[in-house]
Amino acid sequence: MDILNSGFINFIEVVGLISFSISGVMAALDKKLDIFGIFIIAFITAMGGGTLRDILIGDLPVNWMVNTQNSVIVLVAAIVAVLFQKSIFSFQKLLFIFDSLGLGLFTVVGIEKGIAFGFDTGICIVLGTITGCFGGVIRDISINNIPMIFQKEIYATVCIGGGILYFLLKPYIGIAMLDIIIILAIFLVRIWVVRYNISLPDMYKRES
Amino acid sequence: MDILNSGFINFIEVVGLISFSISGVMAALDKKLDIFGIFIIAFITAMGGGTLRDILIGDLPVNWMVNTQNSVIVLVAAIVAVLFQKSIFSFQKLLFIFDSLGLGLFTVVGIEKGIAFGFDTGICIVLGTITGCFGGVIRDISINNIPMIFQKEIYATVCIGGGILYFLLKPYIGIAMLDIIIILAIFLVRIWVVRYNISLPDMYKRES
Amino acid sequence: MDILNSGFINFIEVVGLISFSISGVMAALDKKLDIFGIFIIAFITAMGGGTLRDILIGDLPVNWMVNTQNSVIVLVAAIVAVLFQKSIFSFQKLLFIFDSLGLGLFTVVGIEKGIAFGFDTGICIVLGTITGCFGGVIRDISINNIPMIFQKEIYATVCIGGGILYFLLKPYIGIAMLDIIIILAIFLVRIWVVRYNISLPDMYKRES
Repeated sequence: MDILNSGFINFIEVVGLISFSISGVMAALDKKLDIFGIFIIAFITAMGGGTLRDILIGDLPVNWMVNTQNSVIVLVAAIVAVLFQKSIFSFQKLLFIFDSLGLGLFTVVGIEKGIAFGFDTGICIVLGTITGCFGGVIRDISINNIPMIFQKEIYATVCIGGGILYFLLKPYIGIAMLDIIIILAIFLVRIWVVRYNISLPDMYKRES
Repeated sequence: MDILNSGFINFIEVVGLISFSISGVMAALDKKLDIFGIFIIAFITAMGGGTLRDILIGDLPVNWMVNTQNSVIVLVAAIVAVLFQKSIFSFQKLLFIFDSLGLGLFTVVGIEKGIAFGFDTGICIVLGTITGCFGGVIRDISINNIPMIFQKEIYATVCIGGGILYFLLKPYIGIAMLDIIIILAIFLVRIWVVRYNISLPDMYKRES
Repeated sequence: MDILNSGFINFIEVVGLISFSISGVMAALDKKLDIFGIFIIAFITAMGGGTLRDILIGDLPVNWMVNTQNSVIVLVAAIVAVLFQKSIFSFQKLLFIFDSLGLGLFTVVGIEKGIAFGFDTGICIVLGTITGCFGGVIRDISINNIPMIFQKEIYATVCIGGGILYFLLKPYIGIAMLDIIIILAIFLVRIWVVRYNISLPDMYKRES
């Protein structure tokens, strides 16, 4: 996991945390939460996936209690987002790019934590998906929405696809290059999917 | 816990997982979730109770990460339920029988895990109830419903009653026979309660 | 943490558990839950904060599984509250005082558990706030409300303020006196805030 300590990965982690935090702030503003609620929802969105992952695998205390630097990034991003809330909407495209980069990285981090703990391939992909997607799930449940990714599945499907690709390529490619390929693959597929508004075929036979 | 490895118990575990998974699929279809959301809710319904139990007692990583075979059963049941969703409704009675058997078994599994960890009788009954009932609770919270068992308490009350009976009979009966008696007692009482539409006396004095 | 075993602190813990339990009963009655749902929500309200704290720091099994005496207090308080539900409303003021004392104590308990585990100051304050406030958060999410403290932040802000004061005074005051000062500070500020209906300045610039 050499690459995970490199400048490139650190940069992606920071932009991912910032975009997840801001997406939490925007959801909280939408529900008219107060300033404490806004910060909590920003924190849950950015940290919730990794926290749930660490609880399920028993890697406790959860990471953000030991390494507090990510919490500071999330908090600062949330404060900036609250102060400049009128301007956030002008940066939607940039935030979407950040968010997609973060999704890719968090998925890879979750997968590699699963590998380090010796879990089966399928569980590692589940852990990647939880790390990437379940901050948003816990955010949505906390503010009384049905989780968005249960209704527009492409977000999670891209993670799962990225996870499968990871294990298909793993025997042939070094870990540093593999990380970059998977992050970029998730990033590009998500942008492509959203741009062309692709969704899976409808499952509801009762309506047909 | 010899009996828990026997063919009879394995059979009940499989039918329990299948019925819990299908009940998750039906709740998810009702909320018009997409295919990813449907699988997650099926999984939460079948595994959520045991997962919460294992987190609370600190038996981590949670079991389904280590023994993945139950996850496969849940996933296959969910796929079949989605494919044949029109037909599910014809099998409601059979599913109800499966579900009641599963409730009995999961309660016994939770109780005996509590005993193995050395907890007090009361906590063991709580663990049995969590294992049997809280998959449905987490399912309902995740799809933005008030948990059904908080409103129609018979489901949980049957678990608690089964747990009390377990400890009353424990000094007199061997573990294998005890398991079967408790599973059948929970199974039969639940079917009897639903058939005759029995509920506890109303608690709401303010309306009276 | 000598003081935490003293009669004064034991008294506050009991009144805190009672008031948290009763606030759970009242929220559950409001949602027309049945008797099982009422007891679960009372338990979640009183124990949820400490349970989440212990899961996050990995101090498992959670405390209420090992020391069952607090669970009995919560259960008895809930039974009494259900039996005398018409009269509860006459004791609102007393319950509010109990609740504020409980908030102060639980915050201090959370902070000192964080210190005992060697966490940073900021994390200790977070743990105090979780212990004091997140029982109510989990209660609200469970009964399908947006958590109250995300909308009226003063409750949590008082905890955070109490936590900061704790660490400011810690170098100068003995632990027993410090505990009493922080509990009373949180207690008094909360009563003052509610009495004069103080809230933080509005964060919503979009509406202005």
